[in-house]
Amino acid sequence: MEQHMNGQGPEAGFRHLSKCCPAVRDGPALREPAVEMSAAERFIHEALEVIIDEAVKKATDVQEKVCDWQSPEKLRELLDLELKDGGESDSKILQHCKNAIRYSVKTSHPRFFNQLFAGLEPYSMVASFITEAVKTSLYTYEVAPVFTLMEDAVLKKMMELIGWDEGGDGIFNPGGSMSNMYAVNLARYRFCPDIKEVGLYNAPRLVMFTSQEGHYSISKAAALLGLGTKNVYAVPSDDRGKMIPSALEEKIELARSEGAVPFFVNATAGTTVFGAFDPVDEIADICERHSLWLHVDACWGGAALVSNQHKHLLKGIHRADSVAWNPHKMLMACLQCSAFLIKDKTSLLQRCHSAKASYLFQQDKFYDVSYDTGDKSVQCSRKPDAFKFWLMWKALGSSELERRVDRALAMARYLAQTVKKREGFHLLMKVSCCSYKFFKVVFYFSPSVHDLVQNFSFSHQPEYANVCFWYVPPALRGLPDGPELWRKLHTVAPVIKERMMKTGSMMIGYQTHGDKPNFFRMVVINPQVSKQDLDFVLDEIHSLGKDLR
Amino acid sequence: MEQHMNGQGPEAGFRHLSKCCPAVRDGPALREPAVEMSAAERFIHEALEVIIDEAVKKATDVQEKVCDWQSPEKLRELLDLELKDGGESDSKILQHCKNAIRYSVKTSHPRFFNQLFAGLEPYSMVASFITEAVKTSLYTYEVAPVFTLMEDAVLKKMMELIGWDEGGDGIFNPGGSMSNMYAVNLARYRFCPDIKEVGLYNAPRLVMFTSQEGHYSISKAAALLGLGTKNVYAVPSDDRGKMIPSALEEKIELARSEGAVPFFVNATAGTTVFGAFDPVDEIADICERHSLWLHVDACWGGAALVSNQHKHLLKGIHRADSVAWNPHKMLMACLQCSAFLIKDKTSLLQRCHSAKASYLFQQDKFYDVSYDTGDKSVQCSRKPDAFKFWLMWKALGSSELERRVDRALAMARYLAQTVKKREGFHLLMKVSCCSYKFFKVVFYFSPSVHDLVQNFSFSHQPEYANVCFWYVPPALRGLPDGPELWRKLHTVAPVIKERMMKTGSMMIGYQTHGDKPNFFRMVVINPQVSKQDLDFVLDEIHSLGKDLR
Repeated sequence: MEQHMNGQGPEAGFRHLSKCCPAVRDGPALREPAVEMSAAERFIHEALEVIIDEAVKKATDVQEKVCDWQSPEKLRELLDLELKDGGESDSKILQHCKNAIRYSVKTSHPRFFNQLFAGLEPYSMVASFITEAVKTSLYTYEVAPVFTLMEDAVLKKMMELIGWDEGGDGIFNPGGSMSNMYAVNLARYRFCPDIKEVGLYNAPRLVMFTSQEGHYSISKAAALLGLGTKNVYAVPSDDRGKMIPSALEEKIELARSEGAVPFFVNATAGTTVFGAFDPVDEIADICERHSLWLHVDACWGGAALVSNQHKHLLKGIHRADSVAWNPHKMLMACLQCSAFLIKDKTSLLQRCHSAKASYLFQQDKFYDVSYDTGDKSVQCSRKPDAFKFWLMWKALGSSELERRVDRALAMARYLAQTVKKREGFHLLMKVSCCSYKFFKVVFYFSPSVHDLVQNFSFSHQPEYANVCFWYVPPALRGLPDGPELWRKLHTVAPVIKERMMKTGSMMIGYQTHGDKPNFFRMVVINPQVSKQDLDFVLDEIHSLGKDLR
Repeated sequence: MEQHMNGQGPEAGFRHLSKCCPAVRDGPALREPAVEMSAAERFIHEALEVIIDEAVKKATDVQEKVCDWQSPEKLRELLDLELKDGGESDSKILQHCKNAIRYSVKTSHPRFFNQLFAGLEPYSMVASFITEAVKTSLYTYEVAPVFTLMEDAVLKKMMELIGWDEGGDGIFNPGGSMSNMYAVNLARYRFCPDIKEVGLYNAPRLVMFTSQEGHYSISKAAALLGLGTKNVYAVPSDDRGKMIPSALEEKIELARSEGAVPFFVNATAGTTVFGAFDPVDEIADICERHSLWLHVDACWGGAALVSNQHKHLLKGIHRADSVAWNPHKMLMACLQCSAFLIKDKTSLLQRCHSAKASYLFQQDKFYDVSYDTGDKSVQCSRKPDAFKFWLMWKALGSSELERRVDRALAMARYLAQTVKKREGFHLLMKVSCCSYKFFKVVFYFSPSVHDLVQNFSFSHQPEYANVCFWYVPPALRGLPDGPELWRKLHTVAPVIKERMMKTGSMMIGYQTHGDKPNFFRMVVINPQVSKQDLDFVLDEIHSLGKDLR
């Protein structure tokens, strides 16, 4: 029956179609459906078995590889990418499914630490399958009644955690960068609604503020919105990576003195590299004083709001005008699940973005059209991402979400302690560029790499889930300090990364930061990860890099 | 074992956690994984059965309802939306899954014609499940090797169909509105790259052009990008809904005479309401003459490119600078699947959007970093939507895609013919606002509704898949013309819509357009739909609306 659905090449496909649709232009061809749903069901069944075996069981099995690295050239051959005139049989398609999973990175694997997302959350995964199968878009209650209400329920609960007792408004977006962009646009609209219609041509030069550790999406938003990246003023951070409030105030004064008009401040709750939290309460004081929109980019750090032990990190967030928070990061909802929330209750979101398309947002519908959320968005079709969070929250309860966050942060502390104790491993705690000069001084005068790194490292615990560290191979450990040593250290992480991917044993990110040579950044999220996995990671780094010189 | 995964309320959840994690702060709690994957697998298995039964079998069964309408207030109760401290048992979660599907609209149902998407495409659905399960983001080849190459393969094939023999560049986006927004931003960047850094403050007033029938996202893009909605000049369309090239030229001259600077023209290939195609070739001549960026919004009409019989509709599209094309519309890929393509081969996309984040786009990786596509996007994490199109294309082949498009357009012609023949049904062919005056003249002087509608309707076949029509209930058919009749006709479609949703028999969109009273817009995409379904639709409209007066 297989060929009834898709044929086995051009001839088979044609044969099938000929049977029920001799020629689409003729009337008779339109009398019968052109697809056979029972064959479709059979294929879906078989494919789901493949998904469970390969993308669930194997992908989370610590005995399996985290990735099966192939170069782009080689992978191109393995995947047989060419799209042809004729179709392929279901058995071939199932093989393509297997290959797609096999050569994809297993981000659910307990040895995957490469991103700010990780692990398999079964409830969220099932919810995401449902949203795909149900195939709808959130623009109107009419076509997405269930997901409209679920989005509303999830947003309300998130606002409760933020501390907006009066509620507010919000929308799920395809990613935190979009949420940050929304924040900038809303701030601009509140500042001057006319810009929506007339553009920025007669506007004063508008200036935004974010810390030097803030996410690059703030800058991307400035570029896209016609505000210009140069009008994003980078505020210095302290030695833990937190924005310095007095420096913010100075930058605001600077902009004013230049004749520019400050309108927007982004505070970061959980920076991407170090996991630092800007002091929201103090920043809120400044924003109030200067009548600036306060946005909190809590895409990464928002998860701490579910933890009684850690929510103090976001103290003052209830004073924000808007918040971006991605449950797809530490809370493990399926990708993407990104909330943008605003405190405003005067339909600012709708007024800022609406275009009132008559084909979609009819005002004479038989239900309350305030349930149609589509015109709050810059998108037209929009995915029901909130459901992925709603279903897992329902299954786990807030208490289990809390426990997972607490566990992830406990893991980070364990990892940091272990790194500190291990020969050749050196923590790189949050060091702002204020310390760069210090870094350079140390760089030229300190007698050994150990002293240098010691000067660099702070003894306090990691504040959040990010642990950044260097691995110094034995051959470099006794070397005198100097540019030569640091050039060598800089090449260590990329080589170890290459080796870990080629063996498929684990995945950890590495990067530079300011003047600092390449280091590893590890983030533990997945509750499947145990101490043993972290011990393994450090052993494996040493094992992969001990010959480097 | 169920409670091992998520507990059965706060106590059960706590018991489980207590067993393996007495206190997350203590070392021992971190020794074991905090989740049990076998329980997860069991749950996923059960949930997939629910999905197949409810969201595949039932959802595509013509004997079942297309929707189970509930008011927001009632649905809120039925769904038990509240998120609590304790979790719920797997059996309860499965019930939530069933409810979510049950009360969602069945967009795969053969009687769903409400949107520009419809039907179940099994290969694409499976692909979307895989992308959810594999859970990755397209920013780097490192974490998304398979999907990076598949996106590339699909984009290349689409460019081939567009006729860009030299290739180009592109990216999949969360929706066509985003693609149109990208087009505007790229055009602006090519016009003046400095705007990215310095903003629009010293720029001349930039003006964009789109037809009055173009999608509202062009206007949303102008608002978001700081260009201003007033700087989008609406170009009149002819009586078939196509942009009038000479009118475009006039608008360009007008803008110039005002001291403004034209930079961008959007031609629509397949308008949302009437399915009209702007004459791309003639518009391209004008854009060349005036050095303007030509974008073709082929989100809806791009599908015609796979059909030898219909691709003439997009004649000249190879001359466009950029194209937006949504395979999730007529080609039935799962939501969302939206491609943005540009002809440029000088990394314009990358240069326009890049922010060069060091934590993600390291330049010392061990593979060719030109495979990292993330910095081409304004998003950070981005879904591998191209795979949903790749897998179905592989399975069906170009020939079956072509047959489906041909069939959908043949269906539209059949529907239009049937509407014309039926008593009380009146086609509303593409009528631009140039005809509004004519409409008003007729409105006041024509002797009967039939004459009026006849004057309005053109005898030609629908050009694409959109069929717009009025249903006039018997009681209104003999009425003399006048505002009273038209006011009454205006209320007919909303009531019929309410009734069809409350019986769950079918879903069709209705809307006004310009001065026109509410009419139905039907689009047939789903290959499961046969002539009988279309006949049913017309019968059902009459049956639901014949008492209206």
